[in-house]
Amino acid sequence: MVGIGPGSKEDMSVRALEAVKKSDTIIGYRLYVDLLRDITSGKEIISSAMRKEVERVELAIREALKGKIVSLISSGDSGVYGMAGLVMEMLHKENICLPLEIIPGIPAANAAAALLGAPLMHDYAVISLSDLLTPWETIEKRVKNAAEADFVMVIYNPKSSQRNWQLKKTVEIILKYKNAATPVGVVKNAKREGESIAITTLGKMDQNSIDMMTIVIIGNASSFTFQNYMVTKRGYNLYSSTNKSEKPKSEA
Amino acid sequence: MVGIGPGSKEDMSVRALEAVKKSDTIIGYRLYVDLLRDITSGKEIISSAMRKEVERVELAIREALKGKIVSLISSGDSGVYGMAGLVMEMLHKENICLPLEIIPGIPAANAAAALLGAPLMHDYAVISLSDLLTPWETIEKRVKNAAEADFVMVIYNPKSSQRNWQLKKTVEIILKYKNAATPVGVVKNAKREGESIAITTLGKMDQNSIDMMTIVIIGNASSFTFQNYMVTKRGYNLYSSTNKSEKPKSEA
Repeated sequence: MVGIGPGSKEDMSVRALEAVKKSDTIIGYRLYVDLLRDITSGKEIISSAMRKEVERVELAIREALKGKIVSLISSGDSGVYGMAGLVMEMLHKENICLPLEIIPGIPAANAAAALLGAPLMHDYAVISLSDLLTPWETIEKRVKNAAEADFVMVIYNPKSSQRNWQLKKTVEIILKYKNAATPVGVVKNAKREGESIAITTLGKMDQNSIDMMTIVIIGNASSFTFQNYMVTKRGYNLYSSTNKSEKPKSEA
Repeated sequence: MVGIGPGSKEDMSVRALEAVKKSDTIIGYRLYVDLLRDITSGKEIISSAMRKEVERVELAIREALKGKIVSLISSGDSGVYGMAGLVMEMLHKENICLPLEIIPGIPAANAAAALLGAPLMHDYAVISLSDLLTPWETIEKRVKNAAEADFVMVIYNPKSSQRNWQLKKTVEIILKYKNAATPVGVVKNAKREGESIAITTLGKMDQNSIDMMTIVIIGNASSFTFQNYMVTKRGYNLYSSTNKSEKPKSEA
């Protein structure tokens, strides 16, 4: 189970790259498998459409049981709304024991954050707005509780062509607890083709520009913007701490 | 600002490795700079003790203003309780404009999760228990709200020699909302020397084994354990979905 990070090969870990290179079979959602094209030539490639996760996992297990080395690809981190959990659920259900490795990747949230500046510098909550697998009441409760406790909030799957009211409702809930001037970062296709980065506010967010490939990061009460960046303060007192402490030691 | 991931070079991104290699000066907390020893020979290395973050950032900015290429190192992701935010705060305060790049890394939370299995497969909240920079009331409110909304919870900085009551208090609060049988993963020194991984429950967690280098992951109501893994269900219905949809397309 390989998390390839946001998309470009440069953002993969060395461990993930090596795992793909030594695999016999590469399985994943078409878009993500295509991103790896130049290191997977000569391998068996099985790519499929979105929402075919269960079939992909069954296939990966079947191939692995034949003795093949299989890389099952997720974008971002395979453990964050990715394929790792589904593999484990399936192995558990079928009572299968397989040698496996979960190779973490840079999650989409953190790739988006780095493009925006440093919005995740303090406690944050990661929430998917997709109610395909989760009751909307559960999602709504999480949105409310996270906003009320002033978490920085990372929204995955904010909107799709079929799901078009959840984000609006989410913003309405958050506005009960957070100021309309709270900075919001909107990142689409982080570090891959079609990348776009926008910084706006909770009150002025243009929801039309948002789709399934977008990560939305909503700041906390100490988030601010400057130059083209969105930053959340960590709480350092930059005006008093510098004289109190000893100098760092130079080793070379 | 370079996030090097949990520690071993294999878990760094290609981009982070390249950035370090082309830098003139490497600045960071001693432990993390030491992890990079074999790719930093011949470079100016400035490492310092913990809690000297402000000095490190001032130094990095000073060196960069001289025209040097500086890598300021954080473990994990530099944007998660790391150095990226502090650099931005300092540039903002001093009104300095510098060419800069924030290179994300695999956060400690995600590295720990991958070692445990797949505990972060559903909505999760990341909370630091360090009250050095954050009022305890704020932390406690976040713990309460996250537990109440059944987030998977990732605890950073759970305990240190000086801060020894916060984790106990945190578990007490969580136990008001989550079952004592909820799986808990405890990972120390993920992917570096001294690594230890334990899976326990909220009710039976041994708080003595926990220190500043430990990440604690507390499951949600659908987390479970099997073999040596901790997994949070995503919500797939594994018994009905497989027959409904078309077969994936094989491309090779």
